[in-house]
Amino acid sequence: MENIKNIAMRIRYDGTNYHGWQSQSNGVTVQSTIEKALSELTGSDVKVTGCSRTDAGVHALDYIFNFKSETKIPVEKLPYALNYRLEDDITALEAWVAADDFNSRFSVNGKRYIYNIWNSALKNPFLNRYSWHFPYKLDFKKIKAAAVFFEGKHDFAGFMAAGGQQKTTVRTISVCGAEQSGEFPELLTITVEADAFLYNMVRIIVGTLADVGTGRIEVSDIPEIICSKDRRQGGITAPPQGLFLKKVYL
Amino acid sequence: MENIKNIAMRIRYDGTNYHGWQSQSNGVTVQSTIEKALSELTGSDVKVTGCSRTDAGVHALDYIFNFKSETKIPVEKLPYALNYRLEDDITALEAWVAADDFNSRFSVNGKRYIYNIWNSALKNPFLNRYSWHFPYKLDFKKIKAAAVFFEGKHDFAGFMAAGGQQKTTVRTISVCGAEQSGEFPELLTITVEADAFLYNMVRIIVGTLADVGTGRIEVSDIPEIICSKDRRQGGITAPPQGLFLKKVYL
Repeated sequence: MENIKNIAMRIRYDGTNYHGWQSQSNGVTVQSTIEKALSELTGSDVKVTGCSRTDAGVHALDYIFNFKSETKIPVEKLPYALNYRLEDDITALEAWVAADDFNSRFSVNGKRYIYNIWNSALKNPFLNRYSWHFPYKLDFKKIKAAAVFFEGKHDFAGFMAAGGQQKTTVRTISVCGAEQSGEFPELLTITVEADAFLYNMVRIIVGTLADVGTGRIEVSDIPEIICSKDRRQGGITAPPQGLFLKKVYL
Repeated sequence: MENIKNIAMRIRYDGTNYHGWQSQSNGVTVQSTIEKALSELTGSDVKVTGCSRTDAGVHALDYIFNFKSETKIPVEKLPYALNYRLEDDITALEAWVAADDFNSRFSVNGKRYIYNIWNSALKNPFLNRYSWHFPYKLDFKKIKAAAVFFEGKHDFAGFMAAGGQQKTTVRTISVCGAEQSGEFPELLTITVEADAFLYNMVRIIVGTLADVGTGRIEVSDIPEIICSKDRRQGGITAPPQGLFLKKVYL
């Protein structure tokens, strides 16, 4: 069995047409699509381990998974061979042979997410699938000021949906900020980078920041909301289609 | 008939699912979609005049049309009423009562187009509908250097597809440039602004610039190619989905 390699791949995908990353009994997922393509390609059953359980409609500009295989296809040719079998909404970017103990779920050192809010009474035809359409006026200055309060090492128990399997709810956010795009002044992009994330953590942070933008929550209330560890103190869970996994750090 | 108003509207649309702007016997167009919605909305048959005949798959971040109507709906409410009847890939942005002699086709003073080239062996899941996927290495420096030769008042007879109805093929390009996006280094965006355009002019300029990028055409050959007025001297007509009408100047 010495020919078994632990192969890691970087991919990018538009999540619009998938029921999230993780394989499930009903609906096509990114994981099941890739496992099917890799199994056909290598001629044996492939199971992959992903770096994040993205929900239905969430996108990834950068995503890493790994799998064990005895395939003789040269690793540098794998992305092209895989892309040939995939629809245009998933692209394999690179592949490499990882250390035997590399595991995409546990070996990742950090991740950066971005979240797009389209703040206008009118929709944007190009951003329907890629942003949260928030029709009521948001105070971007307040959102920018509030975002930095999330930075640091905190217990984010109040910013988590049910369904996580973590041992601790303490996470360290290294970057939390908001900025307007140059292209559209109505587009606010929120960036959150952390060592690891709880289930729906970014979307709950964004939902809470939207409440700051409408004035329902004060900027200065954020630290107290974090400390409360009470999910009900924050805002709603922002919808999935505005969320992008932007960068995975190894 | 003194209640007839000449109403102008600004819209934005994703052209992916339309057979271009102009109504035709087969296929749904942006114009036919809008005319149907406005006719239902106002209760009488509406015919609109557009500022540009965009081809199938071409997009508009900004587009102006006008129509005559006796509607009693307040003009400032028209965009919202119209959007309610349109799919998410067309958005009405604003409406106003224009001068009686305003005509979107002839009253426009200039237009700016942008064109996206995605230059990578690998596709980009987010740009398939919004760029020309050009898999062979392009020299962006050469393209940038060549673009400026298109600026100025020239006879662009060689940069026109059959089917135009113009009296003259002389046009003045005020801006022609190329720049890389900050987000993706593989994305080159070409901007062309002119007083008016010939049929497929931007797409032929882009196809010619791609030939400069591959080395088939030298940067310094561009002036001569323009002077030749010979369609065969330039490059191919770049595909429609990379093209966006960016701004219409009144």
